Amino acid sequence: MSDIEIARAANKKPIQEVGAKLDIPSEHLLPYGHDKAKVSADYIASVRDRPDGHLILVTAVNPTPAGEGKTTTTVGLGDGLNAIGKRAAICIREASLGPCFGMKGGAAGGGYAQVVPMEDMNLHFTGDFHAITSAHNLLAAMLDNHIYWGNEQDIDIRRVALRRVMDMNDRALRQIVASLGGVANGFPREAGFDITVASEVMAILCLATDLADLQRRLGAIIVAYRRDRTPVYARDIKADGAMTVLLKDAMQPNLVQTLENNPAFVHGGPFANIAHGCNSVMATTTALKVADYVVTEAGFGADLGAEKFFDIKCRKAGLSPEAVVIVATVRAMKMNGGVAKDDLGTENVEAVRAGCDNLGRHIENVKQFGVPAVVAINHFVTDTDAEVQAVMDYVESHGSRAILCRHWAEGSAGITDLANHVVEMVEGGGAQFAPLYSDDMPLFEKIETVARRIYRADEVLADARIRDQLKQWEAQGYGDLPVCMAKTQYSFTTDPTRRGAPTGHSVPVREVRLSAGAGFVVVICGEIMTMPGLPKVPSAEAIGLNDAGEIEGLF
Amino acid sequence: MSDIEIARAANKKPIQEVGAKLDIPSEHLLPYGHDKAKVSADYIASVRDRPDGHLILVTAVNPTPAGEGKTTTTVGLGDGLNAIGKRAAICIREASLGPCFGMKGGAAGGGYAQVVPMEDMNLHFTGDFHAITSAHNLLAAMLDNHIYWGNEQDIDIRRVALRRVMDMNDRALRQIVASLGGVANGFPREAGFDITVASEVMAILCLATDLADLQRRLGAIIVAYRRDRTPVYARDIKADGAMTVLLKDAMQPNLVQTLENNPAFVHGGPFANIAHGCNSVMATTTALKVADYVVTEAGFGADLGAEKFFDIKCRKAGLSPEAVVIVATVRAMKMNGGVAKDDLGTENVEAVRAGCDNLGRHIENVKQFGVPAVVAINHFVTDTDAEVQAVMDYVESHGSRAILCRHWAEGSAGITDLANHVVEMVEGGGAQFAPLYSDDMPLFEKIETVARRIYRADEVLADARIRDQLKQWEAQGYGDLPVCMAKTQYSFTTDPTRRGAPTGHSVPVREVRLSAGAGFVVVICGEIMTMPGLPKVPSAEAIGLNDAGEIEGLF
Repeated sequence: MSDIEIARAANKKPIQEVGAKLDIPSEHLLPYGHDKAKVSADYIASVRDRPDGHLILVTAVNPTPAGEGKTTTTVGLGDGLNAIGKRAAICIREASLGPCFGMKGGAAGGGYAQVVPMEDMNLHFTGDFHAITSAHNLLAAMLDNHIYWGNEQDIDIRRVALRRVMDMNDRALRQIVASLGGVANGFPREAGFDITVASEVMAILCLATDLADLQRRLGAIIVAYRRDRTPVYARDIKADGAMTVLLKDAMQPNLVQTLENNPAFVHGGPFANIAHGCNSVMATTTALKVADYVVTEAGFGADLGAEKFFDIKCRKAGLSPEAVVIVATVRAMKMNGGVAKDDLGTENVEAVRAGCDNLGRHIENVKQFGVPAVVAINHFVTDTDAEVQAVMDYVESHGSRAILCRHWAEGSAGITDLANHVVEMVEGGGAQFAPLYSDDMPLFEKIETVARRIYRADEVLADARIRDQLKQWEAQGYGDLPVCMAKTQYSFTTDPTRRGAPTGHSVPVREVRLSAGAGFVVVICGEIMTMPGLPKVPSAEAIGLNDAGEIEGLF
Repeated sequence: MSDIEIARAANKKPIQEVGAKLDIPSEHLLPYGHDKAKVSADYIASVRDRPDGHLILVTAVNPTPAGEGKTTTTVGLGDGLNAIGKRAAICIREASLGPCFGMKGGAAGGGYAQVVPMEDMNLHFTGDFHAITSAHNLLAAMLDNHIYWGNEQDIDIRRVALRRVMDMNDRALRQIVASLGGVANGFPREAGFDITVASEVMAILCLATDLADLQRRLGAIIVAYRRDRTPVYARDIKADGAMTVLLKDAMQPNLVQTLENNPAFVHGGPFANIAHGCNSVMATTTALKVADYVVTEAGFGADLGAEKFFDIKCRKAGLSPEAVVIVATVRAMKMNGGVAKDDLGTENVEAVRAGCDNLGRHIENVKQFGVPAVVAINHFVTDTDAEVQAVMDYVESHGSRAILCRHWAEGSAGITDLANHVVEMVEGGGAQFAPLYSDDMPLFEKIETVARRIYRADEVLADARIRDQLKQWEAQGYGDLPVCMAKTQYSFTTDPTRRGAPTGHSVPVREVRLSAGAGFVVVICGEIMTMPGLPKVPSAEAIGLNDAGEIEGLF
């Protein structure tokens, strides 16, 4: 059966029953249909003083076209923990609408480790991304309106920083000239659209701790610069209040369920390059109050995703993760070992062994944050015993442990070994989490620290313009922000073709951007696409309703 | 108390209890929070063969800045019918998000005749407008993507008809040049955005009878013309299936409640100028299956709103309205009689009498459709008895009846006279509804018919280019479509300053547009703004959450 067929056959429970597993009263679940709900802000406030459960991060090796199954393993581990009698919940990100109509979508796991309702999660869901789009574009409209009606703030229209957003893959909107057509339409200027997940509003929603913090952060977005080069903030054009109102419902985390009817919080979805790539702080902190174990994931591989999870999300939200699961597959190891995608079906133990260096590097890196790690080998049907054993041997020789998991095919029954081991790790109490660098380290040193200790680069290359910009931000009081690295997810280096575990490379910084509302400095080390395009034959062409009224072609 | 204070003090019932008044089982109500729900498509299909209830239209005199209270009266009459023991529901339109952040919003009635939850209805509600925005912009992205990847359809990029949409007042997007920045971003071309309610997708959603009809209509949208001037349809670029999927949930009508806990369907909201300005056919036909009396309204005054309700919505959906309520106020009559807005507080019976000619014309017009009419005088606190009596006398001297209504101040108790009279009209069986013109009348004659019989113009002015275009569409098979007049709502003429009941004027047609998917020919007789701008001090600046977490400034 395909993922969608498995999802459709799911024996879903009413969302109130799923919430009851966490003792959330049904009046505090704001339903969206019968199988989705938002957890009310009032309820969240009422549990704020409870002790936290245990937080487990699922991350992965560098992604390859072979796939690694990070979300699938997150969902599987949540089900596995429930199966061994733990009160566990998962926290994952929401899917973006745009890419679903381009390439195949689907961000809800796979096989027998999925979150449902899958169709809704890949379409409008509970409207959070639409609310973010509206809030962002209201700010943009108010900005141009401010300029139109006299420009009291003396905004330099050549230095407008804010772009507009749309949850769509639409390359035609990347670069436009707006306000054409005469006096009534404003002052013509260059502008453009990003996809909604790239909005700073998205990053803010995912880092804000409550509505007051949300409004404060929204107000701190830099929208433009004045003729004297000083920044104009969203609060200067009085947009922060209305934006907060538009995001009031979206701030409440969404509750859905796994195929095994266990609770899943699905909330937020910022880009993993120009933002931090984790689900919302609101969802994670709420889950920690109502569950004993919370399994969450971060975007891309551990070099980007886990580092940002630790250095941005955990640092800002005061979270203390107690275990990390690094997902690897035999196929991904083979590709890291030099095998082409078409040859993945052939047994090749030597290539697996060679590729394991990538995995080993991620294990070492995670341990630098003071959190114990275990490797989950996400089993594929074509894996041979010898190949699996090669990964296990490698990991054990590096002082860690790898556990074979068959949750894709078997659900929770295939992942109880990992679940038991994770409980042991947590109960062992070995975690002593600390971010990689301190707040007060200068910004450029923060970049160097990540580049040297995580990417294992020899140096960071940045010209005077970039170093001066960083110093200027430090002088303006932004020096205590963490850095948000934007580089290729396919390699420890900035060259997407260099797999494995390279050393001795350089990390060239092309650009730095201040996300003053979200609270980080984006460090761009390569081409970053913030508005994707559709492929020649977009999947949208095949999407439609079948005779039974079911959605076809979405996955 | 202000409208918002009254709304906040509402004693709302769970939406399942509201649905139960119409015997809709709770499993067929898809909840959105505890006070909103969509009626499931399955349930709607299951009641399709039931007999219809009675349909009542609420329309009004030409709007003036004094306000007439059409939605308030629609809500009040629904409550009034329930109060006298009838099983009644109301059907009104959803509010657009954009204008709420510009001028004061609010499309949910007023005083003690409101629909709740008011905040939600003026913000994201159940996400229908966001779904329409997404579906429309997916079509636009697929169109530019088609051109980008080789333009198999040979689309002339100078003749792209489709614009993009956003639910925002953003004048900067009215006219843009898109696809700038080089080869990877497409072929530069002129483009622009309309507000979402102006989208043909909105008009289609409001006229479609089921999902199959929706997809057929979406496929028939003309998106561009080829180099040989033949039209390119949405189905030619294979967008209709995915658009239907995006609109699947939005097609299900929304159920909310009045302050008196009576059922209110709030669904769809097309422009009343370039579209037909009524709530959805799905909502109205569904309401007619589950209620004995259904009270609905149409946009603007009766010259535009009622005419389109009859000639477009009722014609297409096979509806037979049985009574019309024309809302008038003493203040609106005074303004039609030449009084300035600042002088409305002073008694002026003479001006009221003079202004009643506007009302009289609307009464005559409505009767041309074969439906009996009654006038509802929506009482304002400043109205004097003599002024009210002047309206009553005028209406009676014109062979009709006017009833004073105090629903704004008193709720259903203030409108039982009107409710009883409406029941008498319906039970009297006097209605013999027929549209103003037949399907087979040539398009230009249809325009002339509306202009002569409704606007009382002497002639329609249109140059050869427009007449030729209409003939061309007739040759292409579009001759049986109704016309959708787009002119000022403030006058029977095309001059917004000419109040009262003018005769002898001309109606100049500036442009005609084919909405092939919605199924009408738009006839533009004046400046039509399809993307509003924000005022100098937009209401967004004052919108925010107060210390109690309540929304301030939205209304």
